[in-house]
Amino acid sequence: MRAQRKTLKVVKIGGKLIENEGKLKHFLADFNELNGPKILVHGGGIMANDLSKKLGIPTKMVDGRRITDAETMKVITMTYAGLINKNIVASLLGIGCNSLGLCGADGKSVISIKREISTIDYGFVGDIEAVNSSFITSLLEQQLVPVFSAISSTYEGLLLNTNADSIATEIAKALTVHYEVELFFCFEKQGVLEDVNDEDSLIETLNIQKYQSLLESGAINDGMLPKLHNCFQALEENISKIYLGDHTLLQEKSTFTKIIK
Amino acid sequence: MRAQRKTLKVVKIGGKLIENEGKLKHFLADFNELNGPKILVHGGGIMANDLSKKLGIPTKMVDGRRITDAETMKVITMTYAGLINKNIVASLLGIGCNSLGLCGADGKSVISIKREISTIDYGFVGDIEAVNSSFITSLLEQQLVPVFSAISSTYEGLLLNTNADSIATEIAKALTVHYEVELFFCFEKQGVLEDVNDEDSLIETLNIQKYQSLLESGAINDGMLPKLHNCFQALEENISKIYLGDHTLLQEKSTFTKIIK
Repeated sequence: MRAQRKTLKVVKIGGKLIENEGKLKHFLADFNELNGPKILVHGGGIMANDLSKKLGIPTKMVDGRRITDAETMKVITMTYAGLINKNIVASLLGIGCNSLGLCGADGKSVISIKREISTIDYGFVGDIEAVNSSFITSLLEQQLVPVFSAISSTYEGLLLNTNADSIATEIAKALTVHYEVELFFCFEKQGVLEDVNDEDSLIETLNIQKYQSLLESGAINDGMLPKLHNCFQALEENISKIYLGDHTLLQEKSTFTKIIK
Repeated sequence: MRAQRKTLKVVKIGGKLIENEGKLKHFLADFNELNGPKILVHGGGIMANDLSKKLGIPTKMVDGRRITDAETMKVITMTYAGLINKNIVASLLGIGCNSLGLCGADGKSVISIKREISTIDYGFVGDIEAVNSSFITSLLEQQLVPVFSAISSTYEGLLLNTNADSIATEIAKALTVHYEVELFFCFEKQGVLEDVNDEDSLIETLNIQKYQSLLESGAINDGMLPKLHNCFQALEENISKIYLGDHTLLQEKSTFTKIIK
């Protein structure tokens, strides 16, 4: 008989929540309350945009994705892996949670390849190739909480801007080797909305058929597209539970969207 | 009979070397060649100054030490723990060295207290209180190379700017519990000079008596004072070997200053 496997919670928090100090504080307190092994993945696009603006570096976006030139990659490395990551790690330390901030180059944890130039040259953007699940598991076994910024690295040591939802999803998928994995996406909405302008139109359970019909009706906005694409891909890879919600998602009585087959 | 203890090399690289891409590359290649467990500690004051300047934040220095206000602390977190740290980690990955970038908050590795206001308020500056030697040892035992930026944290989660020489020295001292420790300081000079303006006046071995006489004659410049103070303090704490030299210090045929009792 197979032994009961431990449950690992992989939680992604979006950039718009991070920049709200009050919400971030409450979110981190909820995160700290989660029992068992857990991993945090954070974005931070807005703070990077702010710094770029101050430094006079133009921000280029295509289809909700940033075009990352060399100067922008420096800004991303400073804000994501520096300012945001270390402040989250320090805040967790302050509330008694021993964590470790990482980008994909650290411990070869998240390895990617530079996106090939097709019609659009995204610049220093990486698509994830490998997650070092044995390294991440060794951290979890030491009761450390890994906190990932949205930066990966090639094996050649090139740092690449990488979608935080994708990092969370790929880490979750890779860790199914060792754990039952639950995946949480916390962002500025209560979950997936039937009508993006109506906060009361929350979809409590979303399956693949419903998703397809929403796609066809154009109800899903640009920001949600890659997120839901990731979710349904993850469902195919043994992720047992996937939830989307706002900064209160980790609380017991929260409302959210649950992704099901 | 006591078993032969492993030798750990703790290497500090200064900010002026880091900003020279060619020298940094050669230095990292030499560092990668070192056998056995090793730790890298880096500064980065110059890059932080550059970013502060671009952002219009004034840089204040007193006695070679930076006055760190809240905005400056953000700049330091971005440049030290973000840009510099992650680029070093990625460069090491690219040459086959599996490393892990850290600030003091990560894994509660370097804990400090905020310097008290006496005649000067240094702002967000930390004096080291504790080094988590068991965590650092666990990384070394996993064949990971810790790469420390010059930032520590209080137990309450306040990030503090901390002298990189002090971080290297305190880590070296703490790790003597598990290892024979050798300490290397790499900076822009060949070592300690009898006359700071004469590159040919290298002191090959420096003991406490000679140090005292140099102090009295005023031959030691401001930048060297805390470095040498650290060195002689470390000698009292079972650090077996201490070397000061330039970016070629880790090469077999380098010239340097050796600190002895």
